[in-house]
Amino acid sequence: MDTIRIGLLGCGTVGSGMVSILDRAGDDIAARAGARLAVTRIAVRDLERDRGPSIDPSILTDDADSIVTDDDIDLVVEVMGGRERAGALIRTALRNGKPVVTANKQLIAHEGPDLLAIAAEAGVDLMYEAAVAGAIPIIRPLKESLAGDHIRRVIGILNGTTNYILTRMTEEGASYDDVLAEAQDLGYAEKPDPSADTGGHDAAAKTAILASLAFDSAVTDPQVHREGIERVTATDIEVARRLGYVIKLVGIASEVDGRIAVRVHPTFLPDTHPLASVRLAFNAVFVEADGAGELMFYGPGAGGEPTGSAVLGDVVDVARNLLNTVRGPIESTHRAVEVRPMEDLTTQYYVLLDVDDRSGVLAAVAATFGDHDVSIAQVWQEGTGDRAQLVLITHRALESNLRACTEALASTDGVRAVANVLRVESEARPT
Amino acid sequence: MDTIRIGLLGCGTVGSGMVSILDRAGDDIAARAGARLAVTRIAVRDLERDRGPSIDPSILTDDADSIVTDDDIDLVVEVMGGRERAGALIRTALRNGKPVVTANKQLIAHEGPDLLAIAAEAGVDLMYEAAVAGAIPIIRPLKESLAGDHIRRVIGILNGTTNYILTRMTEEGASYDDVLAEAQDLGYAEKPDPSADTGGHDAAAKTAILASLAFDSAVTDPQVHREGIERVTATDIEVARRLGYVIKLVGIASEVDGRIAVRVHPTFLPDTHPLASVRLAFNAVFVEADGAGELMFYGPGAGGEPTGSAVLGDVVDVARNLLNTVRGPIESTHRAVEVRPMEDLTTQYYVLLDVDDRSGVLAAVAATFGDHDVSIAQVWQEGTGDRAQLVLITHRALESNLRACTEALASTDGVRAVANVLRVESEARPT
Repeated sequence: MDTIRIGLLGCGTVGSGMVSILDRAGDDIAARAGARLAVTRIAVRDLERDRGPSIDPSILTDDADSIVTDDDIDLVVEVMGGRERAGALIRTALRNGKPVVTANKQLIAHEGPDLLAIAAEAGVDLMYEAAVAGAIPIIRPLKESLAGDHIRRVIGILNGTTNYILTRMTEEGASYDDVLAEAQDLGYAEKPDPSADTGGHDAAAKTAILASLAFDSAVTDPQVHREGIERVTATDIEVARRLGYVIKLVGIASEVDGRIAVRVHPTFLPDTHPLASVRLAFNAVFVEADGAGELMFYGPGAGGEPTGSAVLGDVVDVARNLLNTVRGPIESTHRAVEVRPMEDLTTQYYVLLDVDDRSGVLAAVAATFGDHDVSIAQVWQEGTGDRAQLVLITHRALESNLRACTEALASTDGVRAVANVLRVESEARPT
Repeated sequence: MDTIRIGLLGCGTVGSGMVSILDRAGDDIAARAGARLAVTRIAVRDLERDRGPSIDPSILTDDADSIVTDDDIDLVVEVMGGRERAGALIRTALRNGKPVVTANKQLIAHEGPDLLAIAAEAGVDLMYEAAVAGAIPIIRPLKESLAGDHIRRVIGILNGTTNYILTRMTEEGASYDDVLAEAQDLGYAEKPDPSADTGGHDAAAKTAILASLAFDSAVTDPQVHREGIERVTATDIEVARRLGYVIKLVGIASEVDGRIAVRVHPTFLPDTHPLASVRLAFNAVFVEADGAGELMFYGPGAGGEPTGSAVLGDVVDVARNLLNTVRGPIESTHRAVEVRPMEDLTTQYYVLLDVDDRSGVLAAVAATFGDHDVSIAQVWQEGTGDRAQLVLITHRALESNLRACTEALASTDGVRAVANVLRVESEARPT
């Protein structure tokens, strides 16, 4: 096999990024793979669109099905996105004995276990490094480099848009709405509906994929507890700063007592944590393992060429396997660890209250915490005349207790409003 | 094959770290590898030493040769260190068809190309993830994840001892000698001779290995330009801080105009650079690639279990290959890029001069720089009575010009001494 013939499904940002890199570095990539990699067919929706000089128009088709069944295609790369159509095409490709490389996080997060089973049965590779954190190698390290270790916790900044917004809010003291509007104008956030990013959906899909790999289990997107950054205010960020924290939207997968907690939400992180210094649209994944200790993987989480580079890394791997007539390691799901309900989580919390600025209120609030078995670690109050802001950081408490406590606080004498409640990750051990 | 039988050469910190992890996580590792991994023979120097409950004394031998030729050994793990004996044993193992996993940076840095050729000829794996940056997955990302990209530069903090010393000097304003003595007492630095670390030898070996992988070439340790941290003073560190830099011992491999520069030396890094916040004994590798952009890999660079985890990751990989009767990808050296002499480097420099505190000196110094085609970017002078410290940061200049300039400075009127010269990496593009 002198040439590995690639059928490309989709030719947007990532597809054309991949083609550009292959154009420039094709000779080196061929030397490493052991065969030339050639994109010989591309499925697109719009045949008429001008795609620049590196795309030969004669290889374009609007019939994607013809690619995944084509005997002259050795390997399929799916970068079209979406679940239904992409999933059907990938299934057909795999059943036709074609290995598949995909960047489709939603698809893998929802249907990964089924797709991987089909690939295993067909004896071909299904790889998806580009589905999580763009160019950052994280799938291969979890699946291969750490295969001889036991992972305790994975925490990731997995969405560039929300990290960009939170970074700008932190560094400029700006409001969520102002920064979001600017991010939309700059193309960092979707317009008019940014909720795939800001609501944590994108990060949740990636967290499900990481959780599956970290814990040898089949975790899917609906099992991820998800909260977005919409209710993070400039006040929360300023309070966090004064207490030595930064607020980040993180995906967390951790194992405690034989069950895993999988969640995405805005989180107080100590400003000394390696993830705290990850700015703007960069991504990073922090891994805690029994043997290896604390590792971090950092880089661009999106973009055509960064994601294209991750796709091509997988393509080279698949090509090497094709030349050896083998397939790479299969994702292990032997542990099948149960996902713990969010109510059973124990972690620390930040609670911001609007209270009357008068004596007796702090005592009443403290009593309410005590009544619900939530112990207070830090308190900070700032008055502004007749009303005050009361900030509390709790010790580790049970989520169900904290929720009951929050409800009770709302009707505690002197409390005008529970302005916000956010989780705090300040300890090394998983929560 | 139900069990992969491992012959372990050496049972010091890393060997026993590996055995401990395997003890705890053996079931999961077996599920991932597809077979149980069992250490069935261990070669040690001292048969009498007590090795704790996880080492069965009956599998110990002081005859390492008998392991690498044993038909009942499927895979050899070398963690004994040293070059001559370890190299001979690994060669015998490979020639006997046994794949080898090693943590031996000196051996791979000096003899990697030869050993890899022997492994290729024998059709077996030779893996060495643990040889660079301990637990941090960096070999596999360079060799596999970035196989579809073009790497421009790799910068690594690769030695924990020197990073520990420089961090303490930076954070406490302490002198090199004081911090070194303390590091020796704490076991962070060798006693009585710390020069394998402080002289940059350890980092140079790792840099050679990274350069080989990054540039598809066979770069060996003697080709690495090497300078240690012994001449970094508290003054240098304080000056760096005031100008917005930190001083780190880094290994740098970069490609410019078809040649590569490979070097280890103390370096001014902007305090905003991701490597600048890597503290104490942690390691990190920063990779710049055309497609992927800027990536960083961070974690513990040494220690029994962290390094043992990296060894085991390789062992699982080799085990999977054994079960598939294949071997993993071979290191590509097709580019065989030439290493550029250090004199041809262009980079920025920091120059600290002791000068007379009188008029005319700055003009004379500036003229000397001008005479040697070295352009000055920043100047800062501080007088202390009759003498003054003059700090200069240059624009990018040719190393040979800078060296001639430094020599001329020593005899420039008003210059009492050239106190120090260090390189500055402040630009994104390779130098």
